[in-house]
Amino acid sequence: MEWSLVHDSYRPDEEGLREVLSALGNGYFVTRAASPDASDDGIHYPGTYLAGGYNRLKTWISGREVENEDLVNFPNWLPLTFKINDDRWFRIDEVEIRSYRQKLDLEAGLLTRRLSFSDQSGRVTETFEQRFVSMADQHVAGLSLEIRAVNWSGRLQVRSAIDGGVKNRGVKRYRGLNQHHLEILENREIREAILLCCRTNQSHIVVGIAARTRIYRNGEDVTPEARNTSSKTRVEEEFTLDLEMGESILVEKIITLYTSIDPAISEPMLEAENKIRRLGRFDELLAEHRLTWKHLWEDFDIELEADDPLANLKLRLHIFHLLQTISSHSIDLDVGFPARGWHGEAYRGHIFWDELFAFPFLNLHTPMLTRSLLLYRYRRLPEARCAAREAGYLGAMFPWQSGSNGREEAQRLHQNPRSGRWITDNTYRQRHINAAIAYNIWHYYQATEDHEFMYYYGAEMMLEIARLFASIARHNQEIDRYEISGIVGPDEFHTAYPKEAHSEGLNNNAYTNVLVSWVLIRAIEVLRMFPEERFRQVCERIGLKNGEIDRWDEISRKLRVPFHRDGIISQFEGYEDLTEFDWEGYLEKYGDIRRLDRILDVEGDTTNRYKASKQAD
Amino acid sequence: MEWSLVHDSYRPDEEGLREVLSALGNGYFVTRAASPDASDDGIHYPGTYLAGGYNRLKTWISGREVENEDLVNFPNWLPLTFKINDDRWFRIDEVEIRSYRQKLDLEAGLLTRRLSFSDQSGRVTETFEQRFVSMADQHVAGLSLEIRAVNWSGRLQVRSAIDGGVKNRGVKRYRGLNQHHLEILENREIREAILLCCRTNQSHIVVGIAARTRIYRNGEDVTPEARNTSSKTRVEEEFTLDLEMGESILVEKIITLYTSIDPAISEPMLEAENKIRRLGRFDELLAEHRLTWKHLWEDFDIELEADDPLANLKLRLHIFHLLQTISSHSIDLDVGFPARGWHGEAYRGHIFWDELFAFPFLNLHTPMLTRSLLLYRYRRLPEARCAAREAGYLGAMFPWQSGSNGREEAQRLHQNPRSGRWITDNTYRQRHINAAIAYNIWHYYQATEDHEFMYYYGAEMMLEIARLFASIARHNQEIDRYEISGIVGPDEFHTAYPKEAHSEGLNNNAYTNVLVSWVLIRAIEVLRMFPEERFRQVCERIGLKNGEIDRWDEISRKLRVPFHRDGIISQFEGYEDLTEFDWEGYLEKYGDIRRLDRILDVEGDTTNRYKASKQAD
Repeated sequence: MEWSLVHDSYRPDEEGLREVLSALGNGYFVTRAASPDASDDGIHYPGTYLAGGYNRLKTWISGREVENEDLVNFPNWLPLTFKINDDRWFRIDEVEIRSYRQKLDLEAGLLTRRLSFSDQSGRVTETFEQRFVSMADQHVAGLSLEIRAVNWSGRLQVRSAIDGGVKNRGVKRYRGLNQHHLEILENREIREAILLCCRTNQSHIVVGIAARTRIYRNGEDVTPEARNTSSKTRVEEEFTLDLEMGESILVEKIITLYTSIDPAISEPMLEAENKIRRLGRFDELLAEHRLTWKHLWEDFDIELEADDPLANLKLRLHIFHLLQTISSHSIDLDVGFPARGWHGEAYRGHIFWDELFAFPFLNLHTPMLTRSLLLYRYRRLPEARCAAREAGYLGAMFPWQSGSNGREEAQRLHQNPRSGRWITDNTYRQRHINAAIAYNIWHYYQATEDHEFMYYYGAEMMLEIARLFASIARHNQEIDRYEISGIVGPDEFHTAYPKEAHSEGLNNNAYTNVLVSWVLIRAIEVLRMFPEERFRQVCERIGLKNGEIDRWDEISRKLRVPFHRDGIISQFEGYEDLTEFDWEGYLEKYGDIRRLDRILDVEGDTTNRYKASKQAD
Repeated sequence: MEWSLVHDSYRPDEEGLREVLSALGNGYFVTRAASPDASDDGIHYPGTYLAGGYNRLKTWISGREVENEDLVNFPNWLPLTFKINDDRWFRIDEVEIRSYRQKLDLEAGLLTRRLSFSDQSGRVTETFEQRFVSMADQHVAGLSLEIRAVNWSGRLQVRSAIDGGVKNRGVKRYRGLNQHHLEILENREIREAILLCCRTNQSHIVVGIAARTRIYRNGEDVTPEARNTSSKTRVEEEFTLDLEMGESILVEKIITLYTSIDPAISEPMLEAENKIRRLGRFDELLAEHRLTWKHLWEDFDIELEADDPLANLKLRLHIFHLLQTISSHSIDLDVGFPARGWHGEAYRGHIFWDELFAFPFLNLHTPMLTRSLLLYRYRRLPEARCAAREAGYLGAMFPWQSGSNGREEAQRLHQNPRSGRWITDNTYRQRHINAAIAYNIWHYYQATEDHEFMYYYGAEMMLEIARLFASIARHNQEIDRYEISGIVGPDEFHTAYPKEAHSEGLNNNAYTNVLVSWVLIRAIEVLRMFPEERFRQVCERIGLKNGEIDRWDEISRKLRVPFHRDGIISQFEGYEDLTEFDWEGYLEKYGDIRRLDRILDVEGDTTNRYKASKQAD
């Protein structure tokens, strides 16, 4: 109970949510828990995502060219279904369900579904489905399907495919955008398997997937000759065999997946094909996968003594998804920590500041995961330097939303799905992302004493971030305080002053300013930590002058923190003068007011006017 | 003098050797020191190689299909030449040289060439060429050329190109093989620059190169409009301007190079184009490059007190090439340590055991370079496991020659360039490569106490290598010793017993057996080092049984080491019974007998018959 997420009935309206909650992954790729008989049809949404598998597309919309970098939905490797005699192919939504039980076993990383159903002809069939995305070998996944003819005998057709005809359609409000990311390169049968190879059409990431489908009866391989029923974007094969009443067969579908950005490969299709030939049966692969999860849980499990009987399950589900997002298999991939995992298309797989919440956990268990995620930032330091320079600042300015190459991926304009209107989006002005990065480096170092990391990578980032803030801060002579203007704090409901035309950003956000002070002090501490020789080298390398360091010290002691008249710290300068919001009225009118910004925009109003804070995600 | 390799005259016959000795690189790519006016013509051989830039090609030759994985010669970014009026394009080999001085400045990583020449029309021209491959930014290189009209006035045409029409023709005896590795994808002018993009035709590595050429007179940019003279495989532009007697102009060619296997990119062409727009002038880029080398030398220089006045120069030249082969820029590239650097095509850029000689130096200076090179092995552990299994052994068997994906790249048949005959090549049986890897892991650990590396990566490799040797070793009951048969030691002149038909490999090579004993003892030590919990996990993970560990202990104490009758350790069992070789006779007959194996093969004989040892490279 404390290890399993169980659903005892089929609920089409909940299927989307369950697909995410029960998604399986290994830090290299993630596949949503879509039914293997399903395609994107409004109820189901099969999705397979690569860690760091981005692609950019441009769309002309409302007279503007918009470019987005998305986390690409790669080919669906799940398709596996069957039909009896010449009836229709099984689809969960077209049969009468007698019993249903879907179970995500967190301990084993195994998703199962036991189903009993009767079809239009009154035939009763039982199926048992198991699947895993291997944590032992990141290139491997498996799906097995047992089919039992309860009250019928007949001819069974089994269909297994890899579907490259997928698009990014997971987020409704992105659907107006160009979402056609893939081109199919190859699509063919290979010895005892099928192979599909595709490429993203801008970033040119090549993905090769091979699938081997075998059928067993009483433990014996009875796989009939396959009939190729492929189409242009889908490689597919069908098997036909007879089934007697009471008999069952077991279908095992094993896949291998390689990409052009993998290390240790010659070419992704070749590797997918080589490996599929070397792999044993479903149960052998599952055993290795299970063992890896067993060891992971030995290292990562936390058991709570809690009154809530679901507390442990909830906690484990979070840990489970964390470890599926970032694992030992992510280390070589040059990826950051995405806001919503690699589990879907919301937030486009971008890297915000969410690592801030995950690192404390990783630091104490497997700090090399943190290091690899911090290196994702380091590799984008040149791009961040360029961004700072172009904005007229020193140092490095990391983007609020980061993707493939570290440019700012946040949109400057945002379409309100409620009104269709394009709204200026100032959220990219959340410069506190830089403070978060410095904070994360420092805490990684505190947990590990990894001098080597600090010496070669960490210090340089911290110093450049300190420089950035020091060059943004302006001295206000009147009050002898340093001020930081034109930025946005973690509360995205406030991005400008409502009464000023063309206002962008706010002044003296307390969270940002306090953290900037902290960053400046830490940067000086890092420099003092270094041996003299290295201190000089790092200063020469980034062109850091003694005067700058003195200025950091000065600013760190005099950053302006605004207060309300009653002595409470103000969120930002001027917050106190905003209008009180009519909470009851809006709650009554709209019910769900979590996206108050969009509601007010439709009304021609803006959250900027009110004392209303959005949760910092 | 102790920092510079200088050549004061032009020698066509030495040009090939100088191109290698003065090659410039940064651990990411390396470019031979070919003259920028030259193409592959028997004297010159322009070559640019990527760290880990491999491609496989098949050739039908003498009725056999041979597949080789090569280090690919990528497009030549150097081409830069000029002509006066409508004369011929300048080529070093077609003019009368008045003075010549080529200097490789190791301190700055800068190659210069100062030249004064007169052409067929009696015009005297002076040129000064400088080039670097940036150690500060691995994607950047620069070439500058100053041209001075000493005794003439006239129209000068300058031609700058990126040449994608290159092939792998660096090694004469490979020329019979298919060496056409590249396909050109794009080839066009971009704003103020040119761009060429190509892809290897099997491994599908995409390389994008952008080149910006600007011309200055008295410090002022006087770049005329470019005329596009591109062809199918070469993007090229020409500039025309007038030069007065005594005047000089400065041509600066800056390039950016990105590949599809780079981290932190969206797409290589896009990155090459973005970056070329952001770069400053030659001298600014050179200054950053110089500073990086200054810091490298502060860390890595060794100064000898030696009688040989060239001792320090020689030592520094070695360090220089080591740091150009493996640098901080290699860390993200998943590359090993190649036998001959990334400086040319000999040994096809394969990874043998040469890291054994480089690691002690790296361990004491920048051990993270060693770790990254050991991780190259770890990522290929699954392939090594597969190789062991297919050979009937336990554990992991790393290849003698390793390339992209870790399969054995050594040829089983070798063509003798002296005779054209195909000889069975048993050198792949050098299982001591595995002992070298274990040795390297242990010594890295000794130098660093990097528990994390040992815990997650190192131990697993050492244990699997111990297993391999324990499963190769056979107990000889008669003498109660363990024997290892059918292998080749570091002396490649002995790969089989001459009197036995179909003999492959030798028995009880002393070097191998002693080292195997060492490996087994270290493997046990590593296991004992682990906390109990981790000991159990690692045993479960690789399926290691207690009985195996006991067997390692037993074998380690009883490996057979053969002795000659006079008490000297024999190279291998039976060496003593080989024939004495006629050293004087052969030296007299052939002069150079370093490749004795090929000489004897032509005579229908074999080194296997004689007491003659090849140096262990």
